[in-house]
Amino acid sequence: MVGVDVGGTKVAVLVVDAQRHVRGRTVVPPALTSPQRTLEGIAAAIRQALDVAGASLNEVAAIGIGIPGRVDPQSGVVRLAVNLNWREMPVGAWLSEELGVPCFLEKDVRAAALGVRLCNGGASAQNMVYVGIGTGIGAGVILNGELFHGAHGMAGEIGHMLVEPDGPLCQCGAQGCLEALAAGPAIARLAQQALESGQETRLRDYEQLTAESVYQAAEAGDAAAQAIADAVGHHLGRALQALVMIYDIEQVVLGGGVSRAGKAFLEPILRELERQRQQSALAREMLRLDMIELLPLNCDAGTWGAVAIAEQSLRNLRREKGGVNEISHFLPPLAEPFENRVSNLPEP
Amino acid sequence: MVGVDVGGTKVAVLVVDAQRHVRGRTVVPPALTSPQRTLEGIAAAIRQALDVAGASLNEVAAIGIGIPGRVDPQSGVVRLAVNLNWREMPVGAWLSEELGVPCFLEKDVRAAALGVRLCNGGASAQNMVYVGIGTGIGAGVILNGELFHGAHGMAGEIGHMLVEPDGPLCQCGAQGCLEALAAGPAIARLAQQALESGQETRLRDYEQLTAESVYQAAEAGDAAAQAIADAVGHHLGRALQALVMIYDIEQVVLGGGVSRAGKAFLEPILRELERQRQQSALAREMLRLDMIELLPLNCDAGTWGAVAIAEQSLRNLRREKGGVNEISHFLPPLAEPFENRVSNLPEP
Repeated sequence: MVGVDVGGTKVAVLVVDAQRHVRGRTVVPPALTSPQRTLEGIAAAIRQALDVAGASLNEVAAIGIGIPGRVDPQSGVVRLAVNLNWREMPVGAWLSEELGVPCFLEKDVRAAALGVRLCNGGASAQNMVYVGIGTGIGAGVILNGELFHGAHGMAGEIGHMLVEPDGPLCQCGAQGCLEALAAGPAIARLAQQALESGQETRLRDYEQLTAESVYQAAEAGDAAAQAIADAVGHHLGRALQALVMIYDIEQVVLGGGVSRAGKAFLEPILRELERQRQQSALAREMLRLDMIELLPLNCDAGTWGAVAIAEQSLRNLRREKGGVNEISHFLPPLAEPFENRVSNLPEP
Repeated sequence: MVGVDVGGTKVAVLVVDAQRHVRGRTVVPPALTSPQRTLEGIAAAIRQALDVAGASLNEVAAIGIGIPGRVDPQSGVVRLAVNLNWREMPVGAWLSEELGVPCFLEKDVRAAALGVRLCNGGASAQNMVYVGIGTGIGAGVILNGELFHGAHGMAGEIGHMLVEPDGPLCQCGAQGCLEALAAGPAIARLAQQALESGQETRLRDYEQLTAESVYQAAEAGDAAAQAIADAVGHHLGRALQALVMIYDIEQVVLGGGVSRAGKAFLEPILRELERQRQQSALAREMLRLDMIELLPLNCDAGTWGAVAIAEQSLRNLRREKGGVNEISHFLPPLAEPFENRVSNLPEP
């Protein structure tokens, strides 16, 4: 199986055998010069990863691909992926044709929700939410062990939940969306505002203000940065409360670029949840702090999730078609683990 | 089948035949003098409804019961129903034993979500939410055609979603819960505050201030009452936005005592949603105004939902047990419709 995680800044490919042992990995920047070039770049990245794995396309049973945008998994059409400049692109059909292997698509956060399970060794709950906090904010939801899509494939659009009446303007046009208060660009904007307010802050030392710099400064004790981290934690804590109250889930995994700040990112969220727990017995019952987890830094949920999508879609297809022959090949397992065989792995 | 809707102010019983034609109805006040008396009162109400229907208990295949509180449908135990003073009550087992008919329980708003389908003649969507706005606020959620319970049977606890930072204190101890801003008692409290503020308002003419009086006054053009209706619509509109963004549902049906105010209740909600639609293309796509409906006044979703619970639970039981004989009897259909036969129906 091959899993591909396509993002605005990188295309990551993971090749695994039928026992889910890693056979190869590769990470390349996306080719964004044109929508078609982006597609070709993905095909090239897949070929490159197979080279690393010492495998060929005709040994691959299926390819799963996580896409940052709106996807129709049935038709393989990407409805809208702003970062990739794709609109109504038949990505699944094109890649399947180009590579001669069935390619299955899913929205990236949904794939990642499944990926948590695979890279955590199967430890995730039957009812869980993966929340990706990066350039935007989105959630992949697993209910009763199955990915939940909603009536129009839009379930989990929590980035545009209104969390602050008359809050800052969001890209979508609304005011006070979670994304406009707690995603990476919002955090950078708050840092910029702190500078402009003339506050004494070590945020001035950074050439470029990002969410990462804010959390670094907060961890070093900078008051302005800590205030931003607290505000972000407050908003995310309230959004997680809504998610838990509405879905009644057992586990929330936080991933995405912003979450990589680790403790400095997580602790303000837990403080907001603890504040809610202090006030209400219902909150104490439903919002256990140990249900909130950071995605481990070594867990590449995106590509593992894409592998899960490939496996699952292939199973479904076989069930429908009754064991079609041309898609029945799997990569044979390696005699020795991939990690021993390949010395200089690209970063996952 | 028999469907029972148990509330803090009434116990409503509906008797239908195998073709779902109404055979009898009865509504009595609950007996609240003791937890056991409440149970006995429900059994008596069921017997009375069967008398009205000219039927006997041994013609009844199953009884479904909607309970305002936390229920474990599997064990038939009511964990907590504050209005009925029930805690860890084995309601299902007691009634099944007492009546000699299998009795199945469900949370009232969940049963009502199924009931909308039955009393609307099967017109409800595969993905829908029934929101009950009365003494409290709760939601019954149907996903892919099935009732959704969540990991701990708590899904749809939207009454305790935090919608206003530092908002009014809720019974649960938290501040700014939806229930503390938009349920019946909250609306009455806002009316009281309007009086105390010395505003010119016809709310003074009411002996008892209730949500009903507020909406009456609002409809008659009273500015203070309209301001309250607008505030409630604002909060409900934002909570519905979160529900839709998180679940991606196709239909929202609003029921419960407060919703019976009709247009005066619904229009401020639609105004808030229209405001959101004006701002954002995503909101225009996901929040169609025609997906928000009031439960028709003649639709008794509670008892019909309890009938649906009875049918569904019996089907599940049969599937598990492989056609147990003693629960296979159904009420035979009437030769003529119930409405023609019984002249003075109690109010549903």
